[in-house]
Parts: sequence; C-alpha cells; structure tokens
Amino acid sequence: MRQIEKYNIFERSIKGPEPSTTNVKVDFTGTFRKEDKEVNIKGFYNGNGEYLVRFMPDEEGIWHYELILNASEEIRESGDFECFRETANNHGPVIVNGMNFQYADGTRYIPFGTTLYAWIHQPMQLIEKTIETLSRSPFNKVRMCVFPKGMMYNNNEPELFPFEKNEEGNWDVNQPNFEFWNHLETQLKALIHLGIEADLILFHPYDRWGFANFSREDNLTYLDYCVRRLAAFRNIWWSLANEYDLVHDKNEEDWETFGKFISLEDAYNHLLSNHNCFKIYDASKPWITHCSIQTNSVQKTKMFRDQYKKPVLIDECKYEGNIEPSWGNISGFEMVHRFWTVMVLGGYCTHGETFHRDDEVLWWAKGGELHGESVNRIAFLKNIMSELEGDIQPDKATFDVNPNDPSIKEKLDSVEMDPFAKALFSLDPVELSEFMYGFSTVFSGRHDDKYMIKYLGRECRCFTELELPENGEEYSIEVIDIWEMTRETVLDNAKGKVRVNLPGKEGIAVIATKNK
Amino acid sequence: MRQIEKYNIFERSIKGPEPSTTNVKVDFTGTFRKEDKEVNIKGFYNGNGEYLVRFMPDEEGIWHYELILNASEEIRESGDFECFRETANNHGPVIVNGMNFQYADGTRYIPFGTTLYAWIHQPMQLIEKTIETLSRSPFNKVRMCVFPKGMMYNNNEPELFPFEKNEEGNWDVNQPNFEFWNHLETQLKALIHLGIEADLILFHPYDRWGFANFSREDNLTYLDYCVRRLAAFRNIWWSLANEYDLVHDKNEEDWETFGKFISLEDAYNHLLSNHNCFKIYDASKPWITHCSIQTNSVQKTKMFRDQYKKPVLIDECKYEGNIEPSWGNISGFEMVHRFWTVMVLGGYCTHGETFHRDDEVLWWAKGGELHGESVNRIAFLKNIMSELEGDIQPDKATFDVNPNDPSIKEKLDSVEMDPFAKALFSLDPVELSEFMYGFSTVFSGRHDDKYMIKYLGRECRCFTELELPENGEEYSIEVIDIWEMTRETVLDNAKGKVRVNLPGKEGIAVIATKNK
Repeated sequence: MRQIEKYNIFERSIKGPEPSTTNVKVDFTGTFRKEDKEVNIKGFYNGNGEYLVRFMPDEEGIWHYELILNASEEIRESGDFECFRETANNHGPVIVNGMNFQYADGTRYIPFGTTLYAWIHQPMQLIEKTIETLSRSPFNKVRMCVFPKGMMYNNNEPELFPFEKNEEGNWDVNQPNFEFWNHLETQLKALIHLGIEADLILFHPYDRWGFANFSREDNLTYLDYCVRRLAAFRNIWWSLANEYDLVHDKNEEDWETFGKFISLEDAYNHLLSNHNCFKIYDASKPWITHCSIQTNSVQKTKMFRDQYKKPVLIDECKYEGNIEPSWGNISGFEMVHRFWTVMVLGGYCTHGETFHRDDEVLWWAKGGELHGESVNRIAFLKNIMSELEGDIQPDKATFDVNPNDPSIKEKLDSVEMDPFAKALFSLDPVELSEFMYGFSTVFSGRHDDKYMIKYLGRECRCFTELELPENGEEYSIEVIDIWEMTRETVLDNAKGKVRVNLPGKEGIAVIATKNK
Repeated sequence: MRQIEKYNIFERSIKGPEPSTTNVKVDFTGTFRKEDKEVNIKGFYNGNGEYLVRFMPDEEGIWHYELILNASEEIRESGDFECFRETANNHGPVIVNGMNFQYADGTRYIPFGTTLYAWIHQPMQLIEKTIETLSRSPFNKVRMCVFPKGMMYNNNEPELFPFEKNEEGNWDVNQPNFEFWNHLETQLKALIHLGIEADLILFHPYDRWGFANFSREDNLTYLDYCVRRLAAFRNIWWSLANEYDLVHDKNEEDWETFGKFISLEDAYNHLLSNHNCFKIYDASKPWITHCSIQTNSVQKTKMFRDQYKKPVLIDECKYEGNIEPSWGNISGFEMVHRFWTVMVLGGYCTHGETFHRDDEVLWWAKGGELHGESVNRIAFLKNIMSELEGDIQPDKATFDVNPNDPSIKEKLDSVEMDPFAKALFSLDPVELSEFMYGFSTVFSGRHDDKYMIKYLGRECRCFTELELPENGEEYSIEVIDIWEMTRETVLDNAKGKVRVNLPGKEGIAVIATKNK
C-alpha cells in the first residue's frame, strides 16, 4: 500500500483528453475517506493530458480515495493509502490558537517573517542563494507574490509568467503556464524543507504587465487554479493582497468575493488575510483568520488585538535599509526595536531589507544575501521567545483607556493631587489613548504567573519597578540588551515589588521568570 | 549728568512713608520724556521706606524724568540723564521679527533654550555652579519659575518665598518678600551678563505651598508687582505658565485676564506666551507674541507656524535623561534630532536634562552641572545656524497638503500611474497630512536662494537629491553628521539638480550654500 506522511502531499495523476475551453475549471475530483470523514478535492490540469489531484491528510491510518475525470466511468481510479505519523520537522499547517498561532499538531508557532516579494521571479542562481541565506536565518515565514513585481529596483523581466497569452496578446487565465506553476511549487517545497511558511500574496499593485487589471471573473479563475494546485501544501497562507488599497482596479466587493471564494474552496482552511497600505482591512470579517497589517505605528499592536480579537501580524513596518523612500531606510536598531515592541504587545512583526545595490538585488523583493544588522538581533529575540513558556498576554497600559469605562471618573477623583494625571484623565478617552500611544514606548506583558516581560523601548531609564505576582513564588530577573544581545541575571530570588537597575540606554528589556 | 547705557536699567529711588494697606499697588510713578516720546512707568516699594522706579531707555540722547509719590508735591524728583549707545554684548530686548526673533538693535537672535525651573530656589553654592555651567554652554534662554517647584526630585524647601504670610498663616500677595525679589533680580542680572534671556514662568502646577491657588485678584496683584519690578530687565520674557492646562484652579478667563493685564502694563511689550501640557494655548490671541509649545510631535513645527503665523518655540519636547517618567528619559541623540527637526521646520527647540542623582540635583529643575551628550551637539548646531545667512524658511513638504487646496484633484490625475501616490492623494487631506507627518522624518528649508538645508532625520539614506535654485549660481554642498559633529564639503561648484551620496545612517544633514 502507498504510504504518505501526515501533512505531506498525497498526489495522484490520471491521463485524459486535453480540456476544451479552460485548462483551469476542469472536472476532475478526488474524494478521500477515512471512517466517517470525507474530503472532496478538486484536481487541476498540468498539461500534456495529465490531470493531478493533491491531498494533505491530517489523520493517521488508512485512507480510501476515488478520482473521477469528466464524470466518466472510464477515467477514474480508486485505491487506499496509509498515512503515517509526521516526522520531527513536520508539524502540519499553522492554525490560529486564540490570539496566537500553533501548528496543527499543537506545537507552538511564533512567526518571524521576512519579505521576498519577487524571489521566485529571479534567475535560478539567485533563487538558490536566497534559499541558502534563508536556511541560515531566523525567518520562518516569507511574504511572496505569485505575480512578478514592477517598481523601483524591480526592472528585470521574469523568465516565467503564470499564464499564457491569447491570440490578441492578452493574458488568458484559462491557460496557466504549467512551467511557472511547477517552478513556484519547487520553491514552496524548498520552504517546507526549511520549516518556512509561505504567506502567498495573490494580488498586488506594483504591476507593469496587466496582472492587476483582470475582470472579477478572470480573477476567480486564477484563484481557483491557485487553490486546486497549492492548497495541499501545508505551509501555504493566503494573503489576498499586498496593499489591497493600492490595487485601484478592485473594490470592496471584489475582496469580499475573493476572500469568501478561497475560504469556501480551500478544504484545509489555510490562514487567510488581506494586507493594507493605508486603511487597515476589516479583520473582523469571518473569513479573515488574522490581522496582516502595514503600519508605522507598531505601538498600536495591542489596540488591533483588542479591536479584532484575532492574532496580529504587523506584516510591514518599513524596511531596514538605506534607499531613498521613507519606507526603505530605517536603521537596524529601529527594526529590532519594532520587533520587540510588537512582540511585547502580543503581536508578531515582519522583517524586510532594502540596502541599495547597483545590481538592484535587494533582499526585500529579490532575495540573495542579507546585509543588515537586525537579522542577528531578531534571531536573539526568537531564541528568547522560544524559551518563554506560553504566549505573551500584553498588559493593559497605565493609560490604555476604554472610552466606555465608567471608572475613568473614579480615576479622576483618585488622582486629584497629581496635576498631570488629573489633566490626562480629563481628556476625552480617545484623545487620551492617542496621546499615550505617542508618549510612552514602554510596554509589558506576561503569561499567567509564569513570566513577566517589560520592554523599555527608546526610554533610557536607569531603573524600573516590577510588581511580581503575589503567589509566594520566587522569580529570576534578567536584564536584556536587545542590540548588544546580552542577558544578565540581576536577581534570582525576587518577590513582590522589585526595583531593577538598568543601564539607562535605548533597547533594554527585563524578564522575570518564575523559578522552577 | 547721569549716564546710562541704552537698554540698561535707569533706576531711581525716593524715600517716603511706609505704604498703609498694600506694598504692591503703591502710588509711585515715573514719567520719562525725550522729544515727543513719553513713557509712564509705575514704581514699586522695596521696604524700609524706599520706593524705586526702573526705566529701560531705548533711544540714545537726553531724557527728562519726573517721579511722584502719592501725588504729593513734596515727594517728587525730576532730572535728566543721558542715554548712550549700547556696548558690544548689549543688543536690547528680544522682539519678534516675522516668524523669527531679533534683538531690538536688529541683531539676529536664535533661541537655544534650556530649562532651569527652580534654579533660583536652590542654595547659593548651587546657583553659582549653575551660572558657571551656563557660561560654558550654548544656551541663550532659560525657562525659570518665580514660584518654587514641588514634585519628584524637588523635595527641598527654598530659603526665600515671594511673599510674606499674614496673621492667619496665608500668603499675603500685598506683602512681597523683598529679599526674595532682590535675589531673583540678582540672578536675572547674572543672566544678562551671560547674554541669556529669562523666560520667566509666572504660574505652574507643581506647587505644595499654595501659590497655585490664589484668587484672580491676588494673582493680578502678584503680576502687578512682577511688572513694576522686572519689566525694565531687557532679558525678561513673560511665560504666563508652565503647563497652563495643569493649573486646574485657573480657567480660560483667568489666562485671558492675566495676558491682557501684562500686555497692557508692560511698557516695553516684552515677549509674552503661555505654555501647555496637552492642549496648545491659542497663540492666535493678539497679546501672545509667539508660540511656546510642549509637544512630543516636533515634526508638526511648521504646521504650528502655518496655523498661528507667529514664531514657534518648542519649549518642551521631553528631556535628555534616565529617570522613570517617559518625559525624562530620551537619549542624547533623540534630543539633538529634535533640535534639528524643529530648526529645519522653521522653529526653535528647548533643551532640558534629567539624569537621576541620589542628591536630586537634576539640571532640568535645579541646575548644577550638565551631564548629557546633547549639549555639545546643540552647540555645534548653534554654530552652523549662526553662520547661515538669514532665517530658515521651511519648505512645503511633498505631502504637506492644505485641505482647501483645489489642486489635490490635479495631483491625483498626475499620479495616476503610481499606486502609492494615487491612494495617498485619495485620502482625506487631513488624514493625508497626519499620515505624512508620522511617515517621513526628512524636512528641508532655505533662505531665499542663499542656502538650502535638508535634514534626513532618522532616515538612513545612502544618497539624496537636491534641486538647487535655477539662478546660474554655484553652490557648495556640505554633508553634516549631527552626532559626530563633522562637516564635509562634498561638492564646491554644484548647480541644478545634484545627487549627494550620504553615509546611510541616522542624523545626517545636507547644506548647500551659494558661493560668494
């Protein structure tokens, strides 16, 4: 009997007649059964009379399958296969776990993403270099586009396009370029091999070929093919767009239609979101699994959590680099500072790198090598986060006020003697919240009473105070320099309210961990 | 004949009976005449039967004066004095010159302020140390309070208070403590000697003695005494409050009354403003001479200029230091960065320093010594600014949009091909402006065609482009590192559009100066 590892792809092909009108919406289905469970999967056409169906089993044991092409009695196949337990580096697809993520097997997944928008559209030598660099990096998610990218530093033509052109010279979404899709899949597999999630961007605005201007129907055909071919890859996340609000040919009805379509068609319910430039996409929609936000105001991470009640990925907060546009020249320190800020506020941050090169090979879009100073520090943060037991629950900031909270009046009374606090609480609660988000860069979080983490941001304090949980337990307190990558245990039996001396510089964090 | 230097204090005293009900509102006047000019000045009582009047002449030549006490024929004096030309370091009081400042003699005055809120309330040894430190500093303005300061790090009691107490143990504003006022004046004279303006704060909220809770009438009596005694000091600026909106016992009618009173009573029309914590005081009021703003958003400096059409002083933008509150622990770099940002945007920034000391002597409030890293860099900036010919006219930022500007629609058409710009100009103009103020930290300015200055802020660009004026002239281009304090001339005969290579780090400025 055929054997397949859990969460890997069980693929079968059938030979049949070439499709007549569309190479996408072919009538090829696979039904996969195990006990009471039945999964129906649409197959796809891969050229040369070859029809393929891909299935990612999520249960160990014996599965039965049936494949039917064109509802034909002749062209069908059935059989059994055995799904065996996943091996060490395979934890299945990433799913949502409350405000955080985990793999399907229950293993914690903490996203540390980077952007490689057009890496698959580069020459093979560069692609290989990118994979090598990724293998040595802390990154476990990449944001990458199906379509090629046309903008500054992205002037080279890709070798392969996702579609063939029709006789009028226009892209024909019903004629996928099979070579392209096979190439894309090779890269997805390389990422799986490295344990990296592929946050696959389905639409984006930086287009000089016409891929951003399809009709809604053509776009649905394209998405249909994506789902049929790619949904069985366990590392796929669907990102409807990079900067949906810059894709001017599409309106809200389009995004809603596309999101619902994928949500309905994808048998595995892979993570699905939509990424903004200015206006955050409404992540409260039921088909959105998590927030994928571009913002410069990373200190609002907890606000997004509270608003959308879903995991928050800050999937763009400017790039470490030195190019001219403001989005592409923050310092390495600022990038690392943003990672820490987002993390302590209960979200996840995405890296990107834009150092000018005359050959235009910038990591952000094309891959190659990493040149920045933030990567090592992100790896350092990743190690720390991986050691902490349980996901961060961000603390309510001192002045993190709910406008409907009736206790504001009480607070006002209790601070009568402090002119600053009195004026602060007299502000309209929304003004107050806005003010505080711009005023302080210190944030903290915890996981139950297991640990507390406080990140001092750009504030150069010479000491800070921690109020440890009143549980009779002792805590070890570490002072961390996020840039120098040092960790120093300054107290190993702390209790109650403790004062911790700090070096009075930017980029300091304090972690108190309950002693075992 | 008596002689007095222009802008110095011509002071005369008369002996008379002790006042009966009030030591403030005494009937002692001086009339000063020169040709058609006549100035009436109210004198003040200084104890021991001594009545004083002070006059600051602003014209050279022979002046005639008449002093009258209690409208009495007996207690009066008249005479002449000669006012001679001011000497090298005396340029007269600072006045407003459009959106900038100058001394009365026309010399340019570029404010480089610091805060020393309670320095006059410290022991003499510390006061002397402060004066010594000031003499070696770049600062030419200090913000300082009449009343002592009660808050963290300000727990010591002053030796002298401005008033005596009455029999019930309450402050009696009609009984000034002459020793206090003489002490204050000694420090004002020390500042004059150093060429430093005294931005004298008349009210503030950090009070544990009851000075913040006088009745309106008592406050007017206090202000009356301030004007009678101090207005003749050429370095006086009136700052109605430090953080008016935290002085909870006073309302808008109070501030308006106080502002109008000083404006009316001060024969010299010294600079007059009111400083906020949260809500910027309406600087469009006719009696306000300039904006004195506390804000963390220094990138809004030009917005304030455009709004109020008056010189903008960012008279608090947090302090360089390492204490716990967010307002007191920015890095030296951040302080210098804020100075440059404010300057290039056509405003002026104020320094302050809060490094923790167990003896609680922090420069910000008490003086002593400076410990920070920003001071030398502020001196470096001051040198550069002093060399530049003419005040900075800030450039309109690329996306600095007037909401009423009909050309936005045109811009929208012209950027049709750039998805980012198209979305940007589709935003509500107010949103657009807000977005851009948070997005870019690069600002530029110029003075006619004499020079251009561009500050790259925290953007780490590896090059920038300048469009030099199309006047056929050649420019020298310097690249400045605001932190390392280096200036390198990279081009000495630049014309038209030039590309300037930059080191790709934070804190870089470029200045193009027209060759002579």
